[in-house]
Amino acid sequence: MLTLKRLDLADAQVLIAGAKAKAMEIGVPMCIAVTDESCNLLAFERMDGAKIPSITIAIDKSYTASGIRKPTHELGEASQPGKPAYGISSTVSGRMVVFAGGVPVVVDGGIVGAIGVSSGSPAQDLEVAEAGIKALLQTD
Amino acid sequence: MLTLKRLDLADAQVLIAGAKAKAMEIGVPMCIAVTDESCNLLAFERMDGAKIPSITIAIDKSYTASGIRKPTHELGEASQPGKPAYGISSTVSGRMVVFAGGVPVVVDGGIVGAIGVSSGSPAQDLEVAEAGIKALLQTD
Amino acid sequence: MLTLKRLDLADAQVLIAGAKAKAMEIGVPMCIAVTDESCNLLAFERMDGAKIPSITIAIDKSYTASGIRKPTHELGEASQPGKPAYGISSTVSGRMVVFAGGVPVVVDGGIVGAIGVSSGSPAQDLEVAEAGIKALLQTD
Amino acid sequence: MLTLKRLDLADAQVLIAGAKAKAMEIGVPMCIAVTDESCNLLAFERMDGAKIPSITIAIDKSYTASGIRKPTHELGEASQPGKPAYGISSTVSGRMVVFAGGVPVVVDGGIVGAIGVSSGSPAQDLEVAEAGIKALLQTD
Repeated sequence: MLTLKRLDLADAQVLIAGAKAKAMEIGVPMCIAVTDESCNLLAFERMDGAKIPSITIAIDKSYTASGIRKPTHELGEASQPGKPAYGISSTVSGRMVVFAGGVPVVVDGGIVGAIGVSSGSPAQDLEVAEAGIKALLQTD
Repeated sequence: MLTLKRLDLADAQVLIAGAKAKAMEIGVPMCIAVTDESCNLLAFERMDGAKIPSITIAIDKSYTASGIRKPTHELGEASQPGKPAYGISSTVSGRMVVFAGGVPVVVDGGIVGAIGVSSGSPAQDLEVAEAGIKALLQTD
Repeated sequence: MLTLKRLDLADAQVLIAGAKAKAMEIGVPMCIAVTDESCNLLAFERMDGAKIPSITIAIDKSYTASGIRKPTHELGEASQPGKPAYGISSTVSGRMVVFAGGVPVVVDGGIVGAIGVSSGSPAQDLEVAEAGIKALLQTD
Repeated sequence: MLTLKRLDLADAQVLIAGAKAKAMEIGVPMCIAVTDESCNLLAFERMDGAKIPSITIAIDKSYTASGIRKPTHELGEASQPGKPAYGISSTVSGRMVVFAGGVPVVVDGGIVGAIGVSSGSPAQDLEVAEAGIKALLQTD
């Protein structure tokens, strides 16, 4: 039997609140998703004005970052044409997102979940995701 | 050109808070989803201990109630064997949910979105969804 | 942060070995799947002669039993025409299986995963699933 | 009427055991899948600590290698931008995997199935898959 740690809903709300504060600061309404360490959705918010496809993209960025245990943009580098993971973006029914905005949450060296953000540029999405993680780790 | 009314994220949070309060009162952790009048997801929370398939079922109950503009259990009645909507539960890639727990939000006679709840019995899910709607309408 | 228990691969192998022994005893080759408490697949075996659709059905029975935390046949009773969960079998992309053969694994009062069996009659599938669980609980 | 040869479950277990031994040797927990010559799943194991999206990716690598009768990375070369099979990775609902880790099993010049491995780097996945095949062919 394994024993493991995962984000709870209160953690997810701290992640989302931190991300939303940054999204408001930079003036870009975002879709923000949090998954647990098993890649299952914990919480989601679409800020007023955020984009519709970003609902799915935010959820899947979070899924991907939980799953690969790395920020999604690292998969982007590894999946360029000619690189070892080329083609991974269409696996798992297209749920593997390979651009910036999905970031795992690491506690005591283990992955406990991830946050995924979408609706701005990938750089903005990543900035907002990282603000969420910073908010959570400060409260721990 | 159409002008329409829809739930904003603040409304969705009131719906979810009202539903969560009832879920805690009856001691059943729930998945709670809110969609807008266009059937797109606005917000979602999985309470600690809620069930994994209920993530999808709550979102799809909310989708269904926004879409048909009726509580999901009314579709259940209409889709019994021999009834006019028999078979509708497997349409839209199985997203049409025909049992209790999805309820539209009606403002000034028009649908502005819906709430979907899953993880308890259908009767509990409905009770929790209605508590969410009551919380929203009281604040207006 | 939550702390939880789940089946490991060694547990899954004990479940499958116990199920296979019963399947051989009754002379029905089976597909046997084990998922963890988050509904993700841990292990799967298709015995020589087992049926092809049963690959998916066994995996989805295991998914369902982990997710609803009850044997799948209880969902069958609750989803008959006129019953509260009528229509649930087509939710979650049709992954919710409502006939016998999926059984959760309960340790210390909590769900740690599930086994799903398919290829025989539902009664045979259930008998084989329960033999797997018996094998695991005897070793603990 | 055709008569064909395919892996049986015992063969699949030898493939998986060989792959697991290599995965432990290199210290990377893996998802390991075996499909038969008809691309249908025979056996699957997720080692403790392996990644969740790799469940699907391992199964689909095995599917792809059985299907195209070549290692998946050869499809990667053929599907680079400007190459003849460009775009194949998103066909078959995204099940065609074009990076390393899926390898067909060839007996007497014919394909009898395939192994798919995922959770490490593509190079590690391939090394583990080949160790599985080596284990099987040595026992014949």
